[in-house]
Amino acid sequence: MTTPLSGRPAAKDLDAVIAQLSAQFGARATTVAGIRQTHANSLTWVAPQPPDIVVFPDTTEEIVDIVKLCAGHGVPVIPFGTGTSFEGHVNAPWGGVSVDTSHMNRLLAVHAEDLDCVIEPGITRKALNEQLRDTGLFFPIDPGADASLGGMVSTRASGTNAVRYGTMKDNVLSLKVVLPNGDVMITARRAKKSSAGYDLTRLMVGAEGTLGIITEITLKLAGIPEATSAGICPFPSVKAACDATILTIQSGIPVARIELADELQVKAFNIHSYLGLRETPMLFVEFHGTEQGVEEQAKRFGEIAADLGGGPFEWATKAEERSRLWQARHDAYWSALALRPGCKVIATDVCVPISRLAECVVATQDDIKATGVVAPIVGHVGDGNFHLTLLCNMEDPVDIETCRAFLHRLVQRSLAMEGTCTGEHGVGQEKMKYLLDEHPAATLDAMRAIKRALDPLNIMNPGKIVKV
Amino acid sequence: MTTPLSGRPAAKDLDAVIAQLSAQFGARATTVAGIRQTHANSLTWVAPQPPDIVVFPDTTEEIVDIVKLCAGHGVPVIPFGTGTSFEGHVNAPWGGVSVDTSHMNRLLAVHAEDLDCVIEPGITRKALNEQLRDTGLFFPIDPGADASLGGMVSTRASGTNAVRYGTMKDNVLSLKVVLPNGDVMITARRAKKSSAGYDLTRLMVGAEGTLGIITEITLKLAGIPEATSAGICPFPSVKAACDATILTIQSGIPVARIELADELQVKAFNIHSYLGLRETPMLFVEFHGTEQGVEEQAKRFGEIAADLGGGPFEWATKAEERSRLWQARHDAYWSALALRPGCKVIATDVCVPISRLAECVVATQDDIKATGVVAPIVGHVGDGNFHLTLLCNMEDPVDIETCRAFLHRLVQRSLAMEGTCTGEHGVGQEKMKYLLDEHPAATLDAMRAIKRALDPLNIMNPGKIVKV
Repeated sequence: MTTPLSGRPAAKDLDAVIAQLSAQFGARATTVAGIRQTHANSLTWVAPQPPDIVVFPDTTEEIVDIVKLCAGHGVPVIPFGTGTSFEGHVNAPWGGVSVDTSHMNRLLAVHAEDLDCVIEPGITRKALNEQLRDTGLFFPIDPGADASLGGMVSTRASGTNAVRYGTMKDNVLSLKVVLPNGDVMITARRAKKSSAGYDLTRLMVGAEGTLGIITEITLKLAGIPEATSAGICPFPSVKAACDATILTIQSGIPVARIELADELQVKAFNIHSYLGLRETPMLFVEFHGTEQGVEEQAKRFGEIAADLGGGPFEWATKAEERSRLWQARHDAYWSALALRPGCKVIATDVCVPISRLAECVVATQDDIKATGVVAPIVGHVGDGNFHLTLLCNMEDPVDIETCRAFLHRLVQRSLAMEGTCTGEHGVGQEKMKYLLDEHPAATLDAMRAIKRALDPLNIMNPGKIVKV
Repeated sequence: MTTPLSGRPAAKDLDAVIAQLSAQFGARATTVAGIRQTHANSLTWVAPQPPDIVVFPDTTEEIVDIVKLCAGHGVPVIPFGTGTSFEGHVNAPWGGVSVDTSHMNRLLAVHAEDLDCVIEPGITRKALNEQLRDTGLFFPIDPGADASLGGMVSTRASGTNAVRYGTMKDNVLSLKVVLPNGDVMITARRAKKSSAGYDLTRLMVGAEGTLGIITEITLKLAGIPEATSAGICPFPSVKAACDATILTIQSGIPVARIELADELQVKAFNIHSYLGLRETPMLFVEFHGTEQGVEEQAKRFGEIAADLGGGPFEWATKAEERSRLWQARHDAYWSALALRPGCKVIATDVCVPISRLAECVVATQDDIKATGVVAPIVGHVGDGNFHLTLLCNMEDPVDIETCRAFLHRLVQRSLAMEGTCTGEHGVGQEKMKYLLDEHPAATLDAMRAIKRALDPLNIMNPGKIVKV
C-alpha cells in the first residue's frame, strides 16, 4: 500500500503554505531554526526531524484554517503540546507545519456537581490542578512530565494514580477535534455515559494526532480525598514486592498509588534526592479516602507486606514529606542520569498481566546484569506496567547497538507474556515496528483502513503508529 | 451517499448462501419461520424483520466461513445474542443470516491474579457469575435482562453497578472479532493498559455488530466484596433524591449502586413484588467494602439523606432481603406491565449530566401528567441515566402517536441539557434519527467513513446506527 504522501511536499506547495501562514499569523508563525528544532523532540535513537514552520494558534477556527490550507497543498500537520513524549511523536519526517497548542491553555468551565471540566488542549496537568485547587476537585492522571492535556489524551497517558483513577481513556468524556479535512467533530455529549454510536472519543485517545487535532477536552475530575496517607515499604525481592501488590489488589484495597523501585533505582533516588533509603526493592504506596478508611487500608497493606517479608513500613504523615517522596518518584528520569554521567536516558515502558510482572522484571534484571547496561526500573506495578531508564552513550556506536538489542529483547519478553510493547508512552516512530509483533495482520489492516478513511491524504502527523 | 446494499440481495445469491449453510451446518442452520421470527426481536414500533436463515456456529472458524460466504454473495449478517435489546438491533431489514452465538457460551479461562477472564460471546451474565462463584470474583455489569456478554459489549451496556464499576467500555480488555471481510482481528493484549495503537477494543464496544462479529472477550472481573449492605430510602421529592445522589458522589462515598424509583414505579413494585413501600420517590442503595467501610459509607449516606428530608433508611441486612430488593428493581420492566394490562412496554433511556438530572426527571413527570401517558421512571442516578417504561396500546394508532411524540420530546429534552439520546440501550434502528440531533455532521461523517472503511459491502448488521 503506498501513501499519497510518500516524501516531502513539493517546494512550491510548502512555499505557498509558509507564505499564507506568515501572512495570517504574523509573529505567531515562525521558521526560526532554533524554534523548529525544539519542536522536533525525540528521546529515542531517531534523530530530531524539525518541521518547516511552527504556528501558535489561539482558537479552533485558526486550527481549521491551518488544516484546510495544509490539506489543499498536501503538507503535513504535526500537533504539538509540550514535546515531552518519548518515541518521536512530534518529529516531522517529511517536514510540514507544527501546530503548537501552548497558547490554547484555558480552563473553560468547571462543573463541580458533575465532576467534570472543559479545557483547551495546551493546558498542562500542573497548571490545571493549580486552577482547580479552590474547587475541591483535582485531575489525577500524572505522567512524569508536566505534559499538556492534549498530548496526554493523544498518547493515552497514565501514571502513578492509574491503578485507582484509570488512564486517559477512562477520564475523557468528550473531545472537539479538527479532522484532517478541516471539519470540526465533537465526539460525545457531556453525559457520563452514552451508547449513541461509535466511540470516537476513545478512538481519538491514543491516536497520537494521526487522525486529527484535539482543540477542546471535557475531562472527568475527582474529589480531593478527605485523607491521604503515603509511605515506603522495603521488600527482600522484586518478587515479594510484586506479590504484595497482587494480594493488595485482590483484597480489594483501593490503593491510589503503588509504585515499585528496584535496587538500582533506589540508589539513584538516594543520589539525586538524598532520600537515605536502604538499597533494596521498595514499594511507594498511597491511600485516599476518609480518615478511618485510609487507616484501615494502610493497616491491611502493612499486614500483607509483613506476610511477604516486607517492611517496616515508613509513613510520610506530613504533606511536605509526601510531596518530597512523590517528587523523588517523578524525578526517576533525572535521577537515573546521575548513575552514568554524560549519557542520554532512553526511557521505555512495557506492560504485562500483573501475574507475570515479577517474572518479567526479574528476567529483565538478569538481562541487565548479563549485558552490563545501566537501567534502573520503576513500575506502576498495580497495572503491570514498568519503565526502564536505560543510560546510553550516544557517542558510542557499540553502546547504542547494545542498548538497542537489549530494548528489543525487553519488548519481545513482554509480548511473550501476553504483554504490550508500550503501556503508556505510545508508539510514535520508534515502536511502529513492534506493532507488527504485537497485533495480528488483520488488526493492523483495520488501523490502516481507519487512518486512510479519516485522513486519505495522510497529512495528519504522518509516519507515526502505522504505515499507510 | 448510496450504499452497495440498497435492498434485499438477489434471490440467487440468497439461495446459494442458504444451500451452502444448510450443507455445512445441517441441523444448526434453519429456515423455520418460528425460529426466524424469534431472531427478529424488536421492542419498538419497528415491526419484527426476520432473517432468511438462522445459524448456530460453534467456533470462530465457523463464523469466518459464514462471513466469507455472505461477503461473497452480498448477503447481510446479523449477530445475535439473546435478542433482549430494545431498539431493533437484531432486525434484518434486508433479510440475511442471523448468527446466533448461543452455542458459543464457554468460560475459557479465569486469571484470578489478574482479575480477568476469557469467554465466548454467547455466555449470559448470570451464567458467567454462576461459573465464577468459586473464584471469589464476579462480573459486575448488570443490565435488566440476562443478556449475553457479546450483546452487552455490542450495545455498550451498563446497569445498576455502573456508578462504581463502570460500563462495558470500562470492563473489556480485548476482543476477538471476525471482520466483515472474514479476517480475524484481536484488538489488544491481555495487559491491563496499553498505548499500542488505535483503541479498536473501544471501537467495537457499542458498535452493535455493524463492524464485525465478536467471538471472544477478555473481561475484567472484580473481587466479591467482603461486606455488602443495601437499603431503601424514601425522599419527599425527586429533586431531593437527586441532590442526595450528587452530594453522595461529590463526598467521594464509593456507592456501588444508587437507583431512583419515582412514585409510580414504587407503586408498580408494590403491585408486582409485594414490597409494601410508601409511594414516594425512593433511592435503592448498596455499598461494597470492608465491614467497617460499608458501615461508614452507609452512615454518611444516611446523614446526607436526612439533611435533604429523606429517610428513614430501611436496611436489608440479610442476603435474601437484598436479593428480593434488587430482583424487584430488575423487574421494573415486568412490574410496569401491571399498571396498564394489555399494553406493550416501550422501554427507553436517556442520560444527562447529573447536575441536570432532577430538572430532566421532573420536566418529564410534568409531561407525563400533561400527556396522560403511563410511564414509571427508574434511574441509574449516579450516572445521570434514567429509564422510562412507557405503556402503549399497540392496537390504538392514537395512543401510538401520543407515545411517539412523548418519547421524541424526552430525547429533545435530554439533548437540550447536554445529554444523550441513549445512555445504555444503544441506537439500533429506532434511535438513528436522533443521532442527527445529537452529533454534528462531521461526527456522523466520521462514523460513516469508519463503517465504510471496515465494511465496504455494508453486509454487517446493515441499517443500524448510521446510514451509509
